[in-house]
Amino acid sequence: MERDIQELISQMTLEEKAGLCSGLDFWHTKAVERLGIPSILLTDGPHGLRKQKEGTDHLGLMDSVPATCFPSGAGLACSWDRGLIERVGAALGEECQAEDVAILLGPAVNMKRSPLCGRNFEYFSEDPYLSSEMAAHHIKGVQSQGVGTSLKHFAVNNQEHRRMTIDAILDERTLREIYLASFEGAVKQSQPWTVMCSYNQVNGTFASENEYFLTDILKNEWGHGGFVVSDWGAVNDRVKGLAAGLELEMPSSSGVGDQKIIDAVQSGKLSEESLNKAVERLLAVIFKASDQKKPNASYDPDVHHQLAKIAAIESMVLLKNEDQILPLKKEGTIAVIGAFAKFPRYQGGGSSHINPTQLDDIAEEISKVIGSSGEMVYADGYILDSDNIDEQLIQEAKDAAARSQTAIIFAGLPERYESEGYDREHMRIPENHSKLIEAVAEVQSNSVVVLCNGSAIEMPWIDKVKGVLEGYLGGQALGGAIADLLFGAANPCGKLAETYPQQLSHNPSYLNFPGEGNRVEYKEGLFVGYRYYDAAHIEPLFPFGYGLSYTTFEYTSLSIDKKEMSDRETLLVTVNVKNTGTIAGKEIVQLYVRDVKSSVIRPEKELKGFEKVELQPGEEKIVTFQLNKRAFAYYNTDLKDWHIESGDFEIQIGKSSKEIVLTEKVYVHSSIVIRNTFTRNSTIGDLMEEPAASAAVQQMLLQFHEKSGLMDTLKDNPEMAMAMMKYMPLRALVTFSQGIFTEDMLDTMIEQLNALSTD
Amino acid sequence: MERDIQELISQMTLEEKAGLCSGLDFWHTKAVERLGIPSILLTDGPHGLRKQKEGTDHLGLMDSVPATCFPSGAGLACSWDRGLIERVGAALGEECQAEDVAILLGPAVNMKRSPLCGRNFEYFSEDPYLSSEMAAHHIKGVQSQGVGTSLKHFAVNNQEHRRMTIDAILDERTLREIYLASFEGAVKQSQPWTVMCSYNQVNGTFASENEYFLTDILKNEWGHGGFVVSDWGAVNDRVKGLAAGLELEMPSSSGVGDQKIIDAVQSGKLSEESLNKAVERLLAVIFKASDQKKPNASYDPDVHHQLAKIAAIESMVLLKNEDQILPLKKEGTIAVIGAFAKFPRYQGGGSSHINPTQLDDIAEEISKVIGSSGEMVYADGYILDSDNIDEQLIQEAKDAAARSQTAIIFAGLPERYESEGYDREHMRIPENHSKLIEAVAEVQSNSVVVLCNGSAIEMPWIDKVKGVLEGYLGGQALGGAIADLLFGAANPCGKLAETYPQQLSHNPSYLNFPGEGNRVEYKEGLFVGYRYYDAAHIEPLFPFGYGLSYTTFEYTSLSIDKKEMSDRETLLVTVNVKNTGTIAGKEIVQLYVRDVKSSVIRPEKELKGFEKVELQPGEEKIVTFQLNKRAFAYYNTDLKDWHIESGDFEIQIGKSSKEIVLTEKVYVHSSIVIRNTFTRNSTIGDLMEEPAASAAVQQMLLQFHEKSGLMDTLKDNPEMAMAMMKYMPLRALVTFSQGIFTEDMLDTMIEQLNALSTD
Repeated sequence: MERDIQELISQMTLEEKAGLCSGLDFWHTKAVERLGIPSILLTDGPHGLRKQKEGTDHLGLMDSVPATCFPSGAGLACSWDRGLIERVGAALGEECQAEDVAILLGPAVNMKRSPLCGRNFEYFSEDPYLSSEMAAHHIKGVQSQGVGTSLKHFAVNNQEHRRMTIDAILDERTLREIYLASFEGAVKQSQPWTVMCSYNQVNGTFASENEYFLTDILKNEWGHGGFVVSDWGAVNDRVKGLAAGLELEMPSSSGVGDQKIIDAVQSGKLSEESLNKAVERLLAVIFKASDQKKPNASYDPDVHHQLAKIAAIESMVLLKNEDQILPLKKEGTIAVIGAFAKFPRYQGGGSSHINPTQLDDIAEEISKVIGSSGEMVYADGYILDSDNIDEQLIQEAKDAAARSQTAIIFAGLPERYESEGYDREHMRIPENHSKLIEAVAEVQSNSVVVLCNGSAIEMPWIDKVKGVLEGYLGGQALGGAIADLLFGAANPCGKLAETYPQQLSHNPSYLNFPGEGNRVEYKEGLFVGYRYYDAAHIEPLFPFGYGLSYTTFEYTSLSIDKKEMSDRETLLVTVNVKNTGTIAGKEIVQLYVRDVKSSVIRPEKELKGFEKVELQPGEEKIVTFQLNKRAFAYYNTDLKDWHIESGDFEIQIGKSSKEIVLTEKVYVHSSIVIRNTFTRNSTIGDLMEEPAASAAVQQMLLQFHEKSGLMDTLKDNPEMAMAMMKYMPLRALVTFSQGIFTEDMLDTMIEQLNALSTD
Repeated sequence: MERDIQELISQMTLEEKAGLCSGLDFWHTKAVERLGIPSILLTDGPHGLRKQKEGTDHLGLMDSVPATCFPSGAGLACSWDRGLIERVGAALGEECQAEDVAILLGPAVNMKRSPLCGRNFEYFSEDPYLSSEMAAHHIKGVQSQGVGTSLKHFAVNNQEHRRMTIDAILDERTLREIYLASFEGAVKQSQPWTVMCSYNQVNGTFASENEYFLTDILKNEWGHGGFVVSDWGAVNDRVKGLAAGLELEMPSSSGVGDQKIIDAVQSGKLSEESLNKAVERLLAVIFKASDQKKPNASYDPDVHHQLAKIAAIESMVLLKNEDQILPLKKEGTIAVIGAFAKFPRYQGGGSSHINPTQLDDIAEEISKVIGSSGEMVYADGYILDSDNIDEQLIQEAKDAAARSQTAIIFAGLPERYESEGYDREHMRIPENHSKLIEAVAEVQSNSVVVLCNGSAIEMPWIDKVKGVLEGYLGGQALGGAIADLLFGAANPCGKLAETYPQQLSHNPSYLNFPGEGNRVEYKEGLFVGYRYYDAAHIEPLFPFGYGLSYTTFEYTSLSIDKKEMSDRETLLVTVNVKNTGTIAGKEIVQLYVRDVKSSVIRPEKELKGFEKVELQPGEEKIVTFQLNKRAFAYYNTDLKDWHIESGDFEIQIGKSSKEIVLTEKVYVHSSIVIRNTFTRNSTIGDLMEEPAASAAVQQMLLQFHEKSGLMDTLKDNPEMAMAMMKYMPLRALVTFSQGIFTEDMLDTMIEQLNALSTD
């Protein structure tokens, strides 16, 4: 429907405009009925709809209407499947339409800086490219149904500890290349209707009033056309926030925020023009939502449950499969051990907590799959709501395992271990879970562990079991998915979207997490996740991008369409992948780029492409990637732009970040020439590297060498002589020439050099 | 001799005063003959005297007069022997007197941030306390002879790469607790006559014009009474430098610096008062030197050579001694392999390079020790000045080893690998050295490697040999020392003053060394050396403080004289150490302190005491330590002072940093109470921790909980409920109470809280 928003704004009173900038209540925007401006409903996501039942608490954590619970973000990202996540998004959009929800609050793309962050289960990855791609397709899916999203939490919100006040200190390159990059791709590709600013401060400024983030970068640089909503309660100074680009305060501030805006406009502290711009953005989205609202929409919960099962299958990661213990045979006695099999851990705690339309009983699903060809026995193994070891339950589990051919042990992190609101303090699973695994493995050599957890854990027991399937938080259909994967009805095809370190202390943020007082310094800088383990040669338990399959894949014929290119061109990369096993399977082909030599500190390699391909036995396919400037660039803080240093780049094709199977090399020419400015403290080495330093200047230096006798003096230590010259600042020519080279000569030389270099 | 320096200054012309602030030439200060102000001579050290012969080059790296070459700092520190280093210092002082040297340029106490720093061989340690203690006693020794020292390079000069311009970026706590602490103890204990400022910049300011370092900290806070001299060529802006506290520019600037000072005083840019103060400090030291000059002093080179041998014995570290292969028996055929045995690497390159009074031939010393009871065969193994593997030499070495009972292989770092002026690029020894070790070990299972190197190396071959003796750069008497140690005439008693990581990439500075462009960021912060390996649980090859002996020691009866103390008291710690072996030996007993719980990020433990004790077989001694406030404190950047947080501290007694054998606990009460100031963004958790938050305020919060229904709402997730409350800023009380709690109430509450807290 066409409407003149400017005209509408001109008819609104100051009170109405200010009012639109904060919620009506916990979940709705305000309507202006006399002008036909509707109220819209925002509700929590992102992997399911959490719409509260009417008349419940305003904090909004009580019962919600039933909705399909899909695997949470940590799991979904392990699918590396853009199409799948788009389908999940579309299903979420359908459910929103059915429930009159205009905007689903998600997806969440904060980086997994530490495995301890309590909310990691909602986040996709430690890699910004993977995270951004997943988010972009989630958004596409939801918004394809005429429902908005809210990309969150913008930005640098990587812990729950003191989340509402903590000040995250990080440098500009790290901010751009890691923490913002995860949002950037999603905003540019998919234009989420809204972006949610986070609670925390970044470099001393609250995200909710950070003009650099909300206006300079998000709106101006990335071209975001929607509005920014505060995380619930994130507003510190409402007027500053509005001026910085935060359009909607949530939840309602009971009029406090509105009044502050009114006062600010009336006193001239805030221009009415800024308020109008905010209202314009708000109205655009509000009308987009109301225009696309589908009356009487509904969805089929069973169809969505099936999709949740597919998503779970695609997300789970086979970490270990010694002696090909998996897939299991449906014969003999099979022990299913661990209370998670009956009361699964399938979703995370906090604002994303969903009331599922149905919920699999894992043991039952396994029993169904085994059918009559085998027998399933079950033992609790541990008490769900306690960490205490129950010797009686352990003994029962051992007995069950001992009289079986195989034991499947369910373990992981109970909900109390990870939730929105607080961080974990260690990476261990409860003692009664790990004790159970060790006890069962003692009596049953054919043991497989199925993990349910939202974030990486330590596995000191891993050598004692033959199989490990990482189930993450698999959503309401996890049971069927696990049963299918364990018994071969499905072939595992997920790969880790985060590194599993051998121990917490190996994580690069370890010494600076969760910070000191109200500050957390991101001293590891760019070296987050595999970027660190790679560079520091710290062997992880499982690397980023790792995951096994029941079949095998062979990579051949890596090819690039040019050996040299400019940074304005695109590189086409192709590689052949073949299923060399006997069953169908899917492979996630990963492309990393390495800057062979750089004058700035860069990670060893970075993920810049991935494709998931399905292959029948013997089938092969050509996988194609396109790499543009950004795939080679770093963020240059002087240029305030992405920049490529001319030179060789290695294109690496990997089965995981650690297992690079094919490489090629391309030379990329930068179209930007950075001019050096010489000063008294430029070194002779700097000068020698400058093509513009003419032969004349070099001649002068040579003369200095001769006269000062430096080279002669150091003839016994030529390495030191060279180094001394290389690192010597131009000003030292005066000192060390003992009068031969004067200050005036130095000034003239520097002037000449700078003239040459800007010619 | 008494003299009125103020009176003297008043008689000096501006030109004379300015002239005194820079050198006459490369090594002398200017005399003012008409006023009886003598010129004094400064020469390089620190582990030997490098006085240039007359008439040589002004860069000063040519032939020097013979002097005793003691082990370099990296080795000396491994003695952990305050008395020994003081004796070495006294001997250096004697040689200075004999050569008319007024000031010996050393000791050098920069921290070993990276094993790659080209000058690590001159530096003592990665630990500031050990480094500072070594320096303090070196200074005491030299200055006991009426000769001055120059504690260098002040400060944060931890690499040679771009050393004259690099800007080291680090935070205040790291600066204070690590990099300055190494100077602080030495200045306070031993008052070096001079301190040498370094070439580099720190946080954007050249060390040579850093008022914070040179005046605020060094002169005012630490009470340094001498003068500051520039490292040779370190002056960037002479006038700024003088104003900042740099009294003497070296070498001569051929009048350029003098003129700048004159101009600045004349133009009023620099007060004559500042210049007078600088001259006062210069004259005080110049006269101290001339007054204490001993005419016709001489020394006995043989006696000093013997002291150099003792120092070498005490400094070398036995790293591995499988099957008690050492000490070797003087029987059968013993192969001595490696050209270092004939042409030893015994000192480092650069300004500390000495012309020794004599030099041991290691092979000859070994041959002497073996005498007629065995036979020594020798093979070169490699060519000294090349990395290329010479198969012929390897074969000869294998042949020699194969026909012997034992092989002693000499390997390490040739001089071209490490020197002042440039950093190493990796931690490996030359390929022809490592290949030699592996080849010999193949044919001779009884192989011992003797290492000559100035800094830590990787040892991928270590499992193939039975013994490793780390000789460092052992000085001119290294041969006799090695022979005595290998054959048991002396018992190894050195322990490492630096960690040997398994590989370079494990070093905490690895990702930020040597920096980017002209900046190097010390992102590892406090976590230098063992502070990092401990905290991150990275297993080193050999930990800090590690070293073996031919005897064994037992530690018992750790005792502290109080269980509770204030930060104004001193803790007396005693421990019993017994020689439980059959030969005499020395043990280095180490004391570390651990803050059990801290609100700031602290290392797991820090060295705060050490004693070296000599014990006959069966003998035991009580070792005593005294710990004052500083042993428990961290540098509090808000207080701008050292501060202890009241709480438990663990006293750890260790044989090394990894092998803690006894612990005790003491509760230290701080005498400083830090008052919190509450703001809108203080969290409810902060408030709850404040005793001053009266019951009334807590009551009000309770009321909020009830009215807002928060606790009720989150009853299914009590962990999240608690965390939400704890991390909630006070301002959110307004948002979440939906009108119950107003902005005015909030302001009043904060006012009340702050009134309470300052009562």
